[in-house]
Amino acid sequence: MNKNIDHLKCVLCGRRYEPAEAMYTCEQCGPFGLLNVIYKYAEIKKDFEKKISKPPAHNENNIWRYIDILPVSPETPKTSLRVGMTPYYKPERLAKFLNHENIFIKDDGQNPTASFKDRASAVGVSKSFEFKKDIITCASTGNAASSLSGICAQMGIKTYIFVPKTAPIAKVAQLLLFGANVLMVDGNYDQAFDLCMEASKEFGWYNRNTGYNPYLLEGKKTCALEIFEQSGRKLPDYVFVSVGDGCIIGGIYKGFYDLMSLGLIEKVPKLIGVQAEGSNPFVRAFKNNKSRQLVDMIPETVADSISVGIPRASHQGLNAVYASEGEFIDVTDAEILDALKTLPKYSGVFAEPAGVTGFAGFVKMKKENRMPQNASVAIVVTGNGLKDINTAISCTTKPPVVEPSLASVKKALKM
Amino acid sequence: MNKNIDHLKCVLCGRRYEPAEAMYTCEQCGPFGLLNVIYKYAEIKKDFEKKISKPPAHNENNIWRYIDILPVSPETPKTSLRVGMTPYYKPERLAKFLNHENIFIKDDGQNPTASFKDRASAVGVSKSFEFKKDIITCASTGNAASSLSGICAQMGIKTYIFVPKTAPIAKVAQLLLFGANVLMVDGNYDQAFDLCMEASKEFGWYNRNTGYNPYLLEGKKTCALEIFEQSGRKLPDYVFVSVGDGCIIGGIYKGFYDLMSLGLIEKVPKLIGVQAEGSNPFVRAFKNNKSRQLVDMIPETVADSISVGIPRASHQGLNAVYASEGEFIDVTDAEILDALKTLPKYSGVFAEPAGVTGFAGFVKMKKENRMPQNASVAIVVTGNGLKDINTAISCTTKPPVVEPSLASVKKALKM
Repeated sequence: MNKNIDHLKCVLCGRRYEPAEAMYTCEQCGPFGLLNVIYKYAEIKKDFEKKISKPPAHNENNIWRYIDILPVSPETPKTSLRVGMTPYYKPERLAKFLNHENIFIKDDGQNPTASFKDRASAVGVSKSFEFKKDIITCASTGNAASSLSGICAQMGIKTYIFVPKTAPIAKVAQLLLFGANVLMVDGNYDQAFDLCMEASKEFGWYNRNTGYNPYLLEGKKTCALEIFEQSGRKLPDYVFVSVGDGCIIGGIYKGFYDLMSLGLIEKVPKLIGVQAEGSNPFVRAFKNNKSRQLVDMIPETVADSISVGIPRASHQGLNAVYASEGEFIDVTDAEILDALKTLPKYSGVFAEPAGVTGFAGFVKMKKENRMPQNASVAIVVTGNGLKDINTAISCTTKPPVVEPSLASVKKALKM
Repeated sequence: MNKNIDHLKCVLCGRRYEPAEAMYTCEQCGPFGLLNVIYKYAEIKKDFEKKISKPPAHNENNIWRYIDILPVSPETPKTSLRVGMTPYYKPERLAKFLNHENIFIKDDGQNPTASFKDRASAVGVSKSFEFKKDIITCASTGNAASSLSGICAQMGIKTYIFVPKTAPIAKVAQLLLFGANVLMVDGNYDQAFDLCMEASKEFGWYNRNTGYNPYLLEGKKTCALEIFEQSGRKLPDYVFVSVGDGCIIGGIYKGFYDLMSLGLIEKVPKLIGVQAEGSNPFVRAFKNNKSRQLVDMIPETVADSISVGIPRASHQGLNAVYASEGEFIDVTDAEILDALKTLPKYSGVFAEPAGVTGFAGFVKMKKENRMPQNASVAIVVTGNGLKDINTAISCTTKPPVVEPSLASVKKALKM
């Protein structure tokens, strides 16, 4: 355990827990009583500021730079894969195309297994050492699984992974090669999640599911810490991020919350949670007078990574948007596929459908004239386009085949 | 032009060229008269050493850190994508599995478009600005193309790309989404290369082909510079790298050569060039009394990125191995596919077939008892496994499908 943790606190009833006793959710409130990790901010502040006043050394250019406010002891084994410190770009051509000067892209497809989820898995796997567990399980639409498997492969931990049998084969192949034990569930993500929860209890496996395990959100928050550093401490006014379970946006909020608790920032950027129209429980709650209650649904969207009908981190997801005075919005699959084409074409960043959903949300709000022209906007890209190549292919037209002759080239190019 | 360049020199006849006049190969020697870029090492040395004595700032963590010995002026536009500074890992589990302690993995699949080629494309695109060209072309088995397209998308340069029509669809989709104009050549890579050369001359497009354009090797050399820094200046005894055209290994040699010219290292690590058995002109020359002459062949291998029958950088490829007292070896496709499974399983690094070929070569030499037990070994992984997901899938067995019930899980796991 990191001695910098003060306590964990249930998001529903407020009950406090000691770090050593807090493995999952609140005993009283059950699976939706997620626990927030609260640090001894006043004590940490000075050391933390000092540490981030210098650029990281070559072998420290990753999330462990923030160990002072991570829930893992400095002595606990940690993945040596380069998790985090993904690029933060200012894409000039994209800005011009969209007529919006201050756009930034946080490209989390550049993580070791090519998705944002590596941040959470890295912390989760370290926690399994602290709880002395040697098998980890998770349910996943694909990215969390390949991420967990990759990090476990590097560290030598056994994994059991539950994926819906509709998960893209690219993601499944990746995790099989990482040596994971995979079970394809004849059902959707929500069913895979429930089954994984059951199995974890039955067999005593350590459960890496976000929206249940309190420490994963702490990994996810590092994205916000990096935006803080990489922007030269000039935080954007808005942060757009795709939303499925609500864990990523919850994590990003937590990162900003910690920075505020450390006295390093004065306010949290407005967080805009973007869902696919076919998988939008958060948006429905937001439109229903900012309700704190989600209504389950059967999800259907091209963006498989955020195809979630029963969001597990409902409280933290909603809180992220409400507390930051942001919004939940949704976009159609057509808008997602459109974004999937626009983003690489104008920025060189190639992302999977869920990876561009935050960007699609920005494009939509911009079109609706709801973005102040001078606002600075960070958009989190959550996964690499190579993760779902079939969808990428469906967005392209097959190029012409030419004979190996100049005449054939001229003909094809109408020259 | 970078004023630190002293001259360019033909690898065959030794003729010198001024930077401004050197666009491609030697006028006298033709397409195989590649030019080497020679810097004013003595003048540069002090500044260079000072610069690399500190870790890079967040926005300088890329190849441009080495601008003093790159062929691009500091004022020339440069890609803002994070090219280079890929992770340098010491994979403990892999070391144990192979019973060889000092193994390091340089994971170049972590470049922006997921391959080593981004290093070359970044420099090539900047050179197009210096030569005032607004269209760039290249021939590619896939990676160079998606790399060039991605960087051109970010910078707003038009591209024409020639790929053999057998190129994996994942790579083609990626470059189409980057907005490239693609021509699929009804032939192999060598034919696509020749056609691209013709078209480039005919239409005046800037030619990004490695093994022709002298500046791309300079981008590739940054891998060696990073190994120097990331190893804490403790260079490995051996560097293993896959070989197709010979440009990557030539580039890595050049990086070490520059470091030696700057007085920063005393000798170049032994470079081991690993080819696929079905595409091994370098190996044949090496076995033929270290001949300086390659014999063309019709290539056939699962490792599409190094499937090259007529290597264009023959001189530089051969020189890299001969001058460093290394070797060329080859591995079978079966050995490549075996490596494709071993590497991710024990290190968390997932690579495409050509990406693991260097590693397969190490495994082979180790098996043959030709690796000194105490030797330190760096293995360059040249491309991400997501680049060729079909081959990855072919290496896995479909996991069991379970009903969403615990009973079904127990049955599947025989518990």
